[in-house]
Amino acid sequence: MSERKRVAVVAGVGPGNGTALAKRFAEGGYAVALLARNVSQIEGLAEEIGGKAYACDVGDPDSVSMAFGAIEVDLGPVDVLLFNAGSGVFKSVEEITPADFEAAWRVNAYGALLCAQEVIPGMKARGSGAIIFTGATASLRGSSHTAAFAPAKAAQRSLAQSMARSLWPLGIHVALLIVDGVVDMPRTREAMPDKDDDFFVDPAGLAETAWFVVHQNRRAWSFEVEVRPFSERW
Amino acid sequence: MSERKRVAVVAGVGPGNGTALAKRFAEGGYAVALLARNVSQIEGLAEEIGGKAYACDVGDPDSVSMAFGAIEVDLGPVDVLLFNAGSGVFKSVEEITPADFEAAWRVNAYGALLCAQEVIPGMKARGSGAIIFTGATASLRGSSHTAAFAPAKAAQRSLAQSMARSLWPLGIHVALLIVDGVVDMPRTREAMPDKDDDFFVDPAGLAETAWFVVHQNRRAWSFEVEVRPFSERW
Amino acid sequence: MSERKRVAVVAGVGPGNGTALAKRFAEGGYAVALLARNVSQIEGLAEEIGGKAYACDVGDPDSVSMAFGAIEVDLGPVDVLLFNAGSGVFKSVEEITPADFEAAWRVNAYGALLCAQEVIPGMKARGSGAIIFTGATASLRGSSHTAAFAPAKAAQRSLAQSMARSLWPLGIHVALLIVDGVVDMPRTREAMPDKDDDFFVDPAGLAETAWFVVHQNRRAWSFEVEVRPFSERW
Amino acid sequence: MSERKRVAVVAGVGPGNGTALAKRFAEGGYAVALLARNVSQIEGLAEEIGGKAYACDVGDPDSVSMAFGAIEVDLGPVDVLLFNAGSGVFKSVEEITPADFEAAWRVNAYGALLCAQEVIPGMKARGSGAIIFTGATASLRGSSHTAAFAPAKAAQRSLAQSMARSLWPLGIHVALLIVDGVVDMPRTREAMPDKDDDFFVDPAGLAETAWFVVHQNRRAWSFEVEVRPFSERW
Repeated sequence: MSERKRVAVVAGVGPGNGTALAKRFAEGGYAVALLARNVSQIEGLAEEIGGKAYACDVGDPDSVSMAFGAIEVDLGPVDVLLFNAGSGVFKSVEEITPADFEAAWRVNAYGALLCAQEVIPGMKARGSGAIIFTGATASLRGSSHTAAFAPAKAAQRSLAQSMARSLWPLGIHVALLIVDGVVDMPRTREAMPDKDDDFFVDPAGLAETAWFVVHQNRRAWSFEVEVRPFSERW
Repeated sequence: MSERKRVAVVAGVGPGNGTALAKRFAEGGYAVALLARNVSQIEGLAEEIGGKAYACDVGDPDSVSMAFGAIEVDLGPVDVLLFNAGSGVFKSVEEITPADFEAAWRVNAYGALLCAQEVIPGMKARGSGAIIFTGATASLRGSSHTAAFAPAKAAQRSLAQSMARSLWPLGIHVALLIVDGVVDMPRTREAMPDKDDDFFVDPAGLAETAWFVVHQNRRAWSFEVEVRPFSERW
Repeated sequence: MSERKRVAVVAGVGPGNGTALAKRFAEGGYAVALLARNVSQIEGLAEEIGGKAYACDVGDPDSVSMAFGAIEVDLGPVDVLLFNAGSGVFKSVEEITPADFEAAWRVNAYGALLCAQEVIPGMKARGSGAIIFTGATASLRGSSHTAAFAPAKAAQRSLAQSMARSLWPLGIHVALLIVDGVVDMPRTREAMPDKDDDFFVDPAGLAETAWFVVHQNRRAWSFEVEVRPFSERW
Repeated sequence: MSERKRVAVVAGVGPGNGTALAKRFAEGGYAVALLARNVSQIEGLAEEIGGKAYACDVGDPDSVSMAFGAIEVDLGPVDVLLFNAGSGVFKSVEEITPADFEAAWRVNAYGALLCAQEVIPGMKARGSGAIIFTGATASLRGSSHTAAFAPAKAAQRSLAQSMARSLWPLGIHVALLIVDGVVDMPRTREAMPDKDDDFFVDPAGLAETAWFVVHQNRRAWSFEVEVRPFSERW
């Protein structure tokens, strides 16, 4: 009788980091659950990697609870949560609406809490697990044009710190990957046609770092790890 | 004919820092508007310092817009906004509810945006003004028992940074005071009866620092200034 | 019989911040001791403000010990030490020599220790005093062209933190002012003739902040305070 | 004809992290040069891992230049520099002597520069290479008892940042590992006999992280990576 596959959930699967994370963990032998608002956009990837796609709005408690309930039934308890949902407008405090500010927070911070709370009890019971958040430069500082996005990412980072401090001792590895650069995606390539490969963060590189962090020796864990193209100014 | 008094708004007036801020700015010659959810709790102070009390729930757009509208009519355009609203439960990620997380964010971060957006256009038009946020240790890091409060304060700090970067060049001084310690209030004294005076942050000290920052030479402005009792471990 | 004047030492007096600090503390009623390598360059200022000039190489233990010995005899025990010495080449790791690296450290970090150790015992005995370091943007991060200067300033900042943590509880206020911008001086004006006043940090503004920090209520002390022109990008 | 083995230098080989780094890179196929002040203490390890031991005082320019000269002759150009030298007394500003302060700086910061300058030109010419520093909690902040050690580590960190910013674009990966905890060594075990395994940083875990960072995809490089036991309070 075969052993159950370990289960990884990628919450927030777009064409960049989410896809790369899903592929890396599938390659590594995990059963991978993919979450996106629009399930039709991830079904192809799910099939390609032998995973399973779920419709989920990470900012909606009912939707999150339903998706994680289904994952548990379909694949079993979650070993690794890769919280990769993230979006936000790039505007200044004068330009954003309160609704922009709230929408960014709901996906990046509130959604992070909702998904985490779904998996913590099981990980705690088993004394192991990993919860990895995909952060951004904006997790670390607010710039003039990130009045909505940066506060949402800062809240996410602060939540991740709080979680790390209370969950690490229980054997649950909480970590934050800081993506400091422009991610290589069809959309960003189109928007910046004059940039060469080295300008862009390679999503496969991010995914490799996530894989490494998830499997680190627990007597030498990392919390915050940035990934940045060698050519980036910082 | 007398010149109009400068106007300071203290949003979030409780018995500690809010009261001290209101007194300091009244002493310094400002017309002070006090905002609190329950106006009956601040009417005495308003009378004492010759200010004016307004009922306001800083997390509610209509309430904020109504209060600032009334202030403008009653006292004139706002020169200084002292955003001091702040509250939150002190619990871990396992103990908080999503509602706790949202409530903390709504007061500390969303409310900060709502109040700021009320005063920015006028300050911009005049090319001067100051917006000071009262932060906390939790603005800087998430601890195990601040899973709701710290993300809210981190979002506030990030918003303040974003605002500083876009508004300083327009002559609007945005700053963040980090209160790192237990504020001296009847409630905290009661809870910690064995501590002596020196253990507690003196709200008058915080208010003096706020006053200084608001009136700094604009060719030598500060953004983030902590206040901490000399005896505090940090 | 007149009361003894309080004594402030400005270690490292050049035409910018050092001069402004000396003037501000003289104005505030302090007897001010000025220290510079070349005493002839500060004698005019000493006379102007009713202070006293001392030749001192802050990186040389004998010179420091001699200067502080003379100050104590001439003016009495030191109440405030304003450590403003600072210099460094602006070059990358490939361009600096080990001697550049050492020279920067010797003035900014080692000199800071030597001067501080001269005044700590007296301040401790009296249970009061202030030691303020003038830091720079480079105190916070190393840039490509600050391979010698930034490590020296980072060492100074770290020493200041260590000192604050051990000396604050004894009543000695250790603080660090971060000058984030180009200081207004004849030399910098000449080098950047196209910049207007608002581009430059006003040394008088820095000095005012130093004065404020030195006299803060000890139940609300600040450790790290930046000063930055409102128009600076950061 | 066999290809030349890649060369890794471990500068500062003691019984904890240095030994683990040397073993990991030897296992990974590198020719490993071991540097220590007392060569007799590392000859056994050198033999065990098929590496080569060199006497070197990293704070002495002549000694450094001689050691790296010999390495180049014996093993070829250096691909990876693992700067692991580090020591310091744990005392407060009142307890340290200027000599303690200087000695800590000379090993941790000045030595880091000397070793780095030996390998940079070759790495630059080849357009690749990695320089990894072993930092500590003290790299990030000065505590009351680290008045000598923390400033030295802060200087090292700042130098590493400066180097990263100028050398990454040339293809040289500069990174800093922050060891946040007590390293597992005979000496620390003896000093803390009541602690269990999980209390201590596993040097093999640090070495694994160093290995990972050295071989990261250059479009997703990390600069600062902490390693900390899951049970550590931080």
